[in-house]
Amino acid sequence: MSSLNAKQESAIGVFDSGMGGLTVLSALTQVLPQEKFVYLGDTARLPYGTKSKTTVERYALQAAGLLVQRGVKALVVACNTASGMALPSLQAAFANLPIFGVVEPGAQAAAQVADDSGILVLATETTIRGGAYQQALAGLLKGSRVPIYGRSCPLWVTLAEQGRQSWTLTEAVLKDSLRGFLSRGPKTILLGCTHFPVFAENLNTILPSGVNVVDSAQTTAKAVKAALTARDLLNRADGGSKEYGGPTEYFATDGADRFIQVGSTFLGAAIPQVQLIDI
Amino acid sequence: MSSLNAKQESAIGVFDSGMGGLTVLSALTQVLPQEKFVYLGDTARLPYGTKSKTTVERYALQAAGLLVQRGVKALVVACNTASGMALPSLQAAFANLPIFGVVEPGAQAAAQVADDSGILVLATETTIRGGAYQQALAGLLKGSRVPIYGRSCPLWVTLAEQGRQSWTLTEAVLKDSLRGFLSRGPKTILLGCTHFPVFAENLNTILPSGVNVVDSAQTTAKAVKAALTARDLLNRADGGSKEYGGPTEYFATDGADRFIQVGSTFLGAAIPQVQLIDI
Repeated sequence: MSSLNAKQESAIGVFDSGMGGLTVLSALTQVLPQEKFVYLGDTARLPYGTKSKTTVERYALQAAGLLVQRGVKALVVACNTASGMALPSLQAAFANLPIFGVVEPGAQAAAQVADDSGILVLATETTIRGGAYQQALAGLLKGSRVPIYGRSCPLWVTLAEQGRQSWTLTEAVLKDSLRGFLSRGPKTILLGCTHFPVFAENLNTILPSGVNVVDSAQTTAKAVKAALTARDLLNRADGGSKEYGGPTEYFATDGADRFIQVGSTFLGAAIPQVQLIDI
Repeated sequence: MSSLNAKQESAIGVFDSGMGGLTVLSALTQVLPQEKFVYLGDTARLPYGTKSKTTVERYALQAAGLLVQRGVKALVVACNTASGMALPSLQAAFANLPIFGVVEPGAQAAAQVADDSGILVLATETTIRGGAYQQALAGLLKGSRVPIYGRSCPLWVTLAEQGRQSWTLTEAVLKDSLRGFLSRGPKTILLGCTHFPVFAENLNTILPSGVNVVDSAQTTAKAVKAALTARDLLNRADGGSKEYGGPTEYFATDGADRFIQVGSTFLGAAIPQVQLIDI
């Protein structure tokens, strides 16, 4: 006999400026198949990565507030810009809620495979300028001699949101962003933006062999699972035999049709329905 | 002896999703040197050109509301997406205010120089999909055989807002957008986005000789002057000898430093100061 627990059966909220966070949602549903998820993409105000810290904090607080109103038991900030800029504000505003960013897990994934050739962080302008990844990596690699490099890739988000993986100029744009790093460069590349994993195949073509490309999706999903286990917040209403937490609910602040069409390339699966919501 | 008239001395409000509208402001200050201007760039929510009609209407009403609160005597919607999508809503909401868009003047500029080879409208996704330019041109060219083509150029706004006119890949991106039109194409190209005039030199390199590139900045400025003259709303507080309406006030919803830096390339002049404002 299992006792129902409203908290454990609640959904996990996931938010991003747009559709990039669906790469993180995909990893979460694989690692936590018994959980229900609510995803919010703030597509009316994307991109976040060219905007200031103050504005990113304000938008993140509003988006998180909407998910909290829907009774989520935990929040995943599936956006590197918002994770790097707004995590302390979110944790202060919603003190009773477990809140997870993607920066620390991404930095851990990179630090685990890095060698002395170094780590190159590719991210938005705001993330690189804010330095959250560089700080997290420096903390994890203290005492080592692994050099840390950062490069902002402002056009990659536009290309990803446009679904331009197969466009004739995409690889030229990616190569241009990597100039100076392609030969004799760092052997670990950290994709510090949830949009960038859609370019995995393009990067595979461009990069020399032996370069590890890591992103934060898998390590974030594992970190969320470990933390919810420790807090006894996992959904096990039916005693553990349930393997599917129910269909994910998708919300976007603009462009439901576009979300369904382009979002599926980020998620790697079809998105049946998206509800528009105002912030 | 001139009698002071508060209305005539009021500023003209100009707004855009970001900095592209500064190309229109530049033309306005040349055609109306005795006027004072207040410019608002909604940089916290740019770009508009990938967003839905509903969202563009909502943002335009909010931006216009801010300028109306500041007592402007007229409003110029210096954004093609907002002009094409939101002009009727703006005119309904602020019925006593003369409100000018850039679509009709741009269409007039193109129709004046067009020949039977046709007109190609280059604009954002939302503007092209909305069809405002195509409709305006069809109305102006009724009975003629001038074919009208439209092509959305979603990456151009990002490149322009990044100040990438001299980037190695910019001309390749522009050429890709023009594919199918470069040889034996229409001899009139209408830049249906206020960001695109910054690529004038690049287009000059790419396009075959004999192609006219027109934009809406000059014709919009002339239309505003004619309408304000007809309504006796021109600033002539000192009897007409005054040639300078005072420094333009600049407002942006995000990124004042970036606005000063990149905005000057759109304006073609230095921007001394930008005030941040919340919407």
